[in-house]
Amino acid sequence: MRARRKKWAPGELAHNPLIIRELEKYQSLKDFFPNQAPLYLEIGCGKGRFATETSRRNPDVNYIALEREEVILAAAARLASSREVGSLAFMLADVNDLAEYFKPGDISRMYINFCDPWPGRKKHAKRRLTHDNFLAKYQELKIPEIHFKTDNRSLFEFSIESFSRCKWLVENISLDLHNGNFPDNIMTEYEEKFSPHGPIYRLEAKPPTQA
Amino acid sequence: MRARRKKWAPGELAHNPLIIRELEKYQSLKDFFPNQAPLYLEIGCGKGRFATETSRRNPDVNYIALEREEVILAAAARLASSREVGSLAFMLADVNDLAEYFKPGDISRMYINFCDPWPGRKKHAKRRLTHDNFLAKYQELKIPEIHFKTDNRSLFEFSIESFSRCKWLVENISLDLHNGNFPDNIMTEYEEKFSPHGPIYRLEAKPPTQA
Repeated sequence: MRARRKKWAPGELAHNPLIIRELEKYQSLKDFFPNQAPLYLEIGCGKGRFATETSRRNPDVNYIALEREEVILAAAARLASSREVGSLAFMLADVNDLAEYFKPGDISRMYINFCDPWPGRKKHAKRRLTHDNFLAKYQELKIPEIHFKTDNRSLFEFSIESFSRCKWLVENISLDLHNGNFPDNIMTEYEEKFSPHGPIYRLEAKPPTQA
Repeated sequence: MRARRKKWAPGELAHNPLIIRELEKYQSLKDFFPNQAPLYLEIGCGKGRFATETSRRNPDVNYIALEREEVILAAAARLASSREVGSLAFMLADVNDLAEYFKPGDISRMYINFCDPWPGRKKHAKRRLTHDNFLAKYQELKIPEIHFKTDNRSLFEFSIESFSRCKWLVENISLDLHNGNFPDNIMTEYEEKFSPHGPIYRLEAKPPTQA
């Protein structure tokens, strides 16, 4: 998601207490939170609506929302500061660098919501967050479950095939989330905007168990 | 699919040369055909449109279409007799008895098109042709690939989860077959009737390889 410059963004980025700074200071970002609790990570949190609401509903969880666009991250942190939330923090980072910030076993659940589908060209497939190479990284971090949503049919088809090929277990699939049996869905900003145009797809996936 | 009685049905069932009779006469129904060729099996062929056209387009394949309803089978054989087809035959049988008619390795591909979704009640899940128990039977028969189509969203969700749980490899998924990149699709009668009402789902699946 690209965003225009915002006057308030530099201030948020510099001072909002929900934003984790000096990332290199932590052995693992799990240590950012004073309490011991399962850590949920959202990669590509956009403007933070999903993170804010999920955190609010899960006060017993530590939640980190990652975003690589500064202005978007600022907007997300700003939103969260205006709401009731649980144990929530934001970080400016690229998903390619996850292993710099987390140790294997740190993350108890990962959310991927409406990531860039990189449509069309085959050479871009590697950039999709459900490409085999990414799944291998998530597996190295021993992330036990991924919750994935998208409105992009091709990306969802691609993703099921990736998970299958990499021997992940796929569960709780919905091929039309808003017309199915999933009453607790939390919508992202993008989801609210685009769901009238077609179905929202969702699944959960677990990595292969090591025998 | 239930069907009304048809005057011509008994005649077809008794005399149409495309119908395999005295099934118990064969060690394997693979031997019904005089030529050696890969055997494709369709379970639940309905009125035979898919079988007829698939056979016509694949003259190098032996094709058996299985149906458990007599009148439907008669209609399918009747249709096929009026068309140009390849090496095609029909059999009246229940999919639960596959192992009586085929030996492991006999079947090179299996088609499941628009099978009964057995909606709703959980106790009926075992009757769905993509239930774990059926996948185990297909695996015992060493069927190397299944091509599966349905218009039933819940059945397709259920099926992906079954294949994943049973460690089958899922490939070439389409979540909207008629608006996707699959130009060679052959429609069943049912598919033509119901596709205007929603997407057709399709996938191919391969059993886990024995290490």
